[in-house]
Amino acid sequence: MIVEMQRGIDVEQVDSVVQRAKSLGFQVQLNMGTDKVVIAILGGNTGQVPTDTFAVLPGVESVTRIMKPYKLASREFKGEDSLVNVGKVQIGGKRVVVMAGPCAVENEKQLMEVGKAIKETGAAVLRGGAFKPRTSPFSFQGLEEAGLELLAKVRQTFNIPVITEVVDPHDVELVAKSADILQVGSRNMQNFALLTEVGKSKRPVMLKRGFSSTVTEWLTAADYLLAEGNSQVILCERGIRTFEDSIRFSLDISSIPVIKKFSHLPLIVDPSHATGHYSLVPAVAKAAVAAGADGILIEVHPNPKEALVDGLQSLTISDFTRLMAELKSIAKSIDRYI
Amino acid sequence: MIVEMQRGIDVEQVDSVVQRAKSLGFQVQLNMGTDKVVIAILGGNTGQVPTDTFAVLPGVESVTRIMKPYKLASREFKGEDSLVNVGKVQIGGKRVVVMAGPCAVENEKQLMEVGKAIKETGAAVLRGGAFKPRTSPFSFQGLEEAGLELLAKVRQTFNIPVITEVVDPHDVELVAKSADILQVGSRNMQNFALLTEVGKSKRPVMLKRGFSSTVTEWLTAADYLLAEGNSQVILCERGIRTFEDSIRFSLDISSIPVIKKFSHLPLIVDPSHATGHYSLVPAVAKAAVAAGADGILIEVHPNPKEALVDGLQSLTISDFTRLMAELKSIAKSIDRYI
Amino acid sequence: MIVEMQRGIDVEQVDSVVQRAKSLGFQVQLNMGTDKVVIAILGGNTGQVPTDTFAVLPGVESVTRIMKPYKLASREFKGEDSLVNVGKVQIGGKRVVVMAGPCAVENEKQLMEVGKAIKETGAAVLRGGAFKPRTSPFSFQGLEEAGLELLAKVRQTFNIPVITEVVDPHDVELVAKSADILQVGSRNMQNFALLTEVGKSKRPVMLKRGFSSTVTEWLTAADYLLAEGNSQVILCERGIRTFEDSIRFSLDISSIPVIKKFSHLPLIVDPSHATGHYSLVPAVAKAAVAAGADGILIEVHPNPKEALVDGLQSLTISDFTRLMAELKSIAKSIDRYI
Amino acid sequence: MIVEMQRGIDVEQVDSVVQRAKSLGFQVQLNMGTDKVVIAILGGNTGQVPTDTFAVLPGVESVTRIMKPYKLASREFKGEDSLVNVGKVQIGGKRVVVMAGPCAVENEKQLMEVGKAIKETGAAVLRGGAFKPRTSPFSFQGLEEAGLELLAKVRQTFNIPVITEVVDPHDVELVAKSADILQVGSRNMQNFALLTEVGKSKRPVMLKRGFSSTVTEWLTAADYLLAEGNSQVILCERGIRTFEDSIRFSLDISSIPVIKKFSHLPLIVDPSHATGHYSLVPAVAKAAVAAGADGILIEVHPNPKEALVDGLQSLTISDFTRLMAELKSIAKSIDRYI
Repeated sequence: MIVEMQRGIDVEQVDSVVQRAKSLGFQVQLNMGTDKVVIAILGGNTGQVPTDTFAVLPGVESVTRIMKPYKLASREFKGEDSLVNVGKVQIGGKRVVVMAGPCAVENEKQLMEVGKAIKETGAAVLRGGAFKPRTSPFSFQGLEEAGLELLAKVRQTFNIPVITEVVDPHDVELVAKSADILQVGSRNMQNFALLTEVGKSKRPVMLKRGFSSTVTEWLTAADYLLAEGNSQVILCERGIRTFEDSIRFSLDISSIPVIKKFSHLPLIVDPSHATGHYSLVPAVAKAAVAAGADGILIEVHPNPKEALVDGLQSLTISDFTRLMAELKSIAKSIDRYI
Repeated sequence: MIVEMQRGIDVEQVDSVVQRAKSLGFQVQLNMGTDKVVIAILGGNTGQVPTDTFAVLPGVESVTRIMKPYKLASREFKGEDSLVNVGKVQIGGKRVVVMAGPCAVENEKQLMEVGKAIKETGAAVLRGGAFKPRTSPFSFQGLEEAGLELLAKVRQTFNIPVITEVVDPHDVELVAKSADILQVGSRNMQNFALLTEVGKSKRPVMLKRGFSSTVTEWLTAADYLLAEGNSQVILCERGIRTFEDSIRFSLDISSIPVIKKFSHLPLIVDPSHATGHYSLVPAVAKAAVAAGADGILIEVHPNPKEALVDGLQSLTISDFTRLMAELKSIAKSIDRYI
Repeated sequence: MIVEMQRGIDVEQVDSVVQRAKSLGFQVQLNMGTDKVVIAILGGNTGQVPTDTFAVLPGVESVTRIMKPYKLASREFKGEDSLVNVGKVQIGGKRVVVMAGPCAVENEKQLMEVGKAIKETGAAVLRGGAFKPRTSPFSFQGLEEAGLELLAKVRQTFNIPVITEVVDPHDVELVAKSADILQVGSRNMQNFALLTEVGKSKRPVMLKRGFSSTVTEWLTAADYLLAEGNSQVILCERGIRTFEDSIRFSLDISSIPVIKKFSHLPLIVDPSHATGHYSLVPAVAKAAVAAGADGILIEVHPNPKEALVDGLQSLTISDFTRLMAELKSIAKSIDRYI
Repeated sequence: MIVEMQRGIDVEQVDSVVQRAKSLGFQVQLNMGTDKVVIAILGGNTGQVPTDTFAVLPGVESVTRIMKPYKLASREFKGEDSLVNVGKVQIGGKRVVVMAGPCAVENEKQLMEVGKAIKETGAAVLRGGAFKPRTSPFSFQGLEEAGLELLAKVRQTFNIPVITEVVDPHDVELVAKSADILQVGSRNMQNFALLTEVGKSKRPVMLKRGFSSTVTEWLTAADYLLAEGNSQVILCERGIRTFEDSIRFSLDISSIPVIKKFSHLPLIVDPSHATGHYSLVPAVAKAAVAAGADGILIEVHPNPKEALVDGLQSLTISDFTRLMAELKSIAKSIDRYI
């Protein structure tokens, strides 16, 4: 942490910064410029201390972090890539893992058709929402427990892992019965009560990026899961809110190399929620694979015209089959496979 | 809802849009331009239907909402201003209601000093957090139940209403015992499990705007509370995330006249969380009162240097006292009072 | 400038940073933590050196500025407030200066009516565009030289100063003949060829903030004007681009105290271009005055329904007259006047 | 254009909207809902009329565009892809065109080394800035005319086309002597005086997206070039300003399929200015090719450590050579070549 003092301050003000730093167990070095005093506060845990701790002291002009505020999710903490194993599917390795399925679980027929397509195309995981967080209280909110039962059934029939969202801290156990991977949605990335419970469950969990969260905040939220002892954490980039209005959210493609640089956690990309339109999904999916994502989350629906939720961003099974062929070709060109 | 068809589509495609609209109980009118067919779908509840319902049909180029997606929070639904009464304090009337207190409840002495300042300055409500949603798992998370007890004690001593945040849907009843107004925080604006429970409680509730939510999404979230039968809803603007880096969040000053135009709900403004720095709070607080806010939420701490949370954005009691005098002068100039 | 080195780097890498800093005339202090080496580079002009100068060297993890990149516009460079005098109108003093007029100059009758309203309401400066930068090539582009002549005529008739925009570096002299204040528009804030010419002209100039520029970039652009020896610089906040879609641009209300803290230059606020809608202008104008703006720029048109440009954000003369009374009341409450 | 009237308006207000629409040559259809009147205004050129034209009329609630505001750049105007030919290099065809070179031209040796690398790696075009728009007046502003001469020399030596930026409308002819493609930079995307002159020149031009411009505004700016009769227009996506702070700008990857859907113009992607860091450039470059970009603009410098401008985002020649091999592999996997 670097504390820049205002011009013309007195010795006592410098001293109060130094004392506070020492009381927290940090080392301190003073840099006396002709204009200004700059205090370097050093130590492995300075990232976990809020900058306000020093900014609030008299005579301080500004405080700048050197260490990142996240710790357990950082590559400095763990150098090698983390791998998450879900049954026979490994996430974070050489295989690019495709997760596919409808936004919301609607009925058995729908889910069976998608399960079959997953098997046939070489996708790895079935996705489907039973609890649906919806912007409006007047929209369809999901089949809830009945939806979980359908997911469990399709999982068994096709022997494929299932991912589904949990929205209430008190439902974690319930959802964990039917799902192999728990999903924490974008709107809940900083729902700390939920993160704590999911962390305690020790189940594989996919943490979607808040649509207005920085990469730093996202990795700090991952620390909530990791701090509870859950090491099975997968990240999911799903687009951020920007001024651009031709799409729902702008997929942050550079978050892929940024995450790979600063974190050891595997990263999935969701082009469906980002773009919001089926015609834009394939190009963005291909980009994500080429940029080094460890997997893709794609909305697929046997009949998007009749989907209860987000039909516009869903691929048909035939479009999805075509896209899988293209993704395989790209994966091969960068020495990975699907 | 306006459905623009692509050029050169056939009659069946128009027909499928018409049929779907009629099946939902809407009226339909066709506009046949030389270039394009544009279909107007009319009816009081079109705002509650997702645009995807039509966008997903073949031959559709774009779908545009005419009606807003929120309903109960809208001024079209209820023309006159809503008033929320908390003890003898009325929010939404001629009085500009000042809510003040520390970010986090720390101890009895701290809270008593603030309670005294509230009484002496003419502020109306005591704020203080017992459950603190924190970005990092390594930060102080609040005194929780012990904090609620301190709030209850100060409330009784000074006979002032108390507002505090609830973060878990299962804590609503607990928090409602010690607080007059429940606060739903910015990061939970779309935590629909929480909104539903708070809505059911029928207690006055202040819904903070998500820091990346549009005004439309914010009012749609308010519909969750109103749809459960809770009419005691107060809105709180607290700044939005932008590219500007001189402050924490950019207070959206124009949201004040926008909310007044489109909604009947009272609106409080929080300059402390927006700016993040005590030196910027007074100017923004004064702006909010001049622009027509129904109240202000200000962080005040007897000793910001030792605050456990957000000391940098807290005013001292003497700075707060000075600001109150300035706010009273501005309130008077626009024919309101504090 | 603070240079954080990567872990495990060798002495030579530290040395190359030190050598480069010294070659630029800076002082250097090393901070050897147990984990990392952090190098403080000190000196009054470090703000004018790009961070890349050091970031590009091997072994460097990150580089953080301490000094701001702007210099001449900063309050550190000049402590007291700058005043710009235009005829008998002083900008930056106790008077809140109201500049009013149509977006585009259309004809003599229009401009005369506005000139009369300025005189009668106590506004100070006439605004009106002769050269109009328009988003689409198919829109009205302004009366150009004929517009300048009309401005000059009204200026003489009512003896009021005139502000108008210049868009081409080669038109500066031409525009300066008819205008007392040159305006550099938002889209040209980083048109450095234009800034340089306007700087050379030594005429009072109002620099509008780029709608996606940080305060820091804005003040750095002001340095272009000041570096050419033009000290007559006025800033104008006109809203920034955010995700919020209920208005055109989000007026950055906190830029007012931020500018007052970091710069000595006077600041005008334009609520018309920010909000884009006449019904929202008064609330935001009042907020700006209460927050400490040195003036307001308001679009006024005798007949907004027939305006060639931006009629929707223009006030009628009667609405403007009512607003002036309200602004005077607020100015008085903060011990200023209009 | 769809005009929604307020509730309870009278016939005359509807009539004034109808009259104005008819006076502009448009067709009108009324949609009388039980709640509201909605007026559809139809005709091929409604996109070129500002929405304010109707929004300003009494009784109007809102106005929504159906037609896009751009025309000549749209795929509706021209269905087949446009190709731009520069010598033997075709942009917009099956070849993915790589443009490479330093941010700023510094000296002959530097430029010759890059020219050689272009030849050897199969890149197509040399880039290099002679006029540099810089944020601060204290930064290096480019070699100007001497830089143009160096570009011309390397162009001749290696027989490769050259692209360079023009910043002043009065320099267009001068720059066109030394360059095959004129570049309009991001900060000048809405410098309409410059666009008009470049449009008149009829030279191939690459229009970089303003870093805070929507795709719609970008294509409308392209209309300025096309309206002057210059059909040789290339677009360049270079990242947009968002809240994310791990990179300089967030490359808008979905702009690639969006542009391909709505426009016939070829599209180049610049990962160097977007990310601002050499370690992030390769992943984003690969993503852009996979997503369907027609080319890539990469900053390459023989010695980035000593670069005068933007060294941090420049690849060394050996890094660039490695990236070219990877890009070729990806291009092949999507049936294109480099």
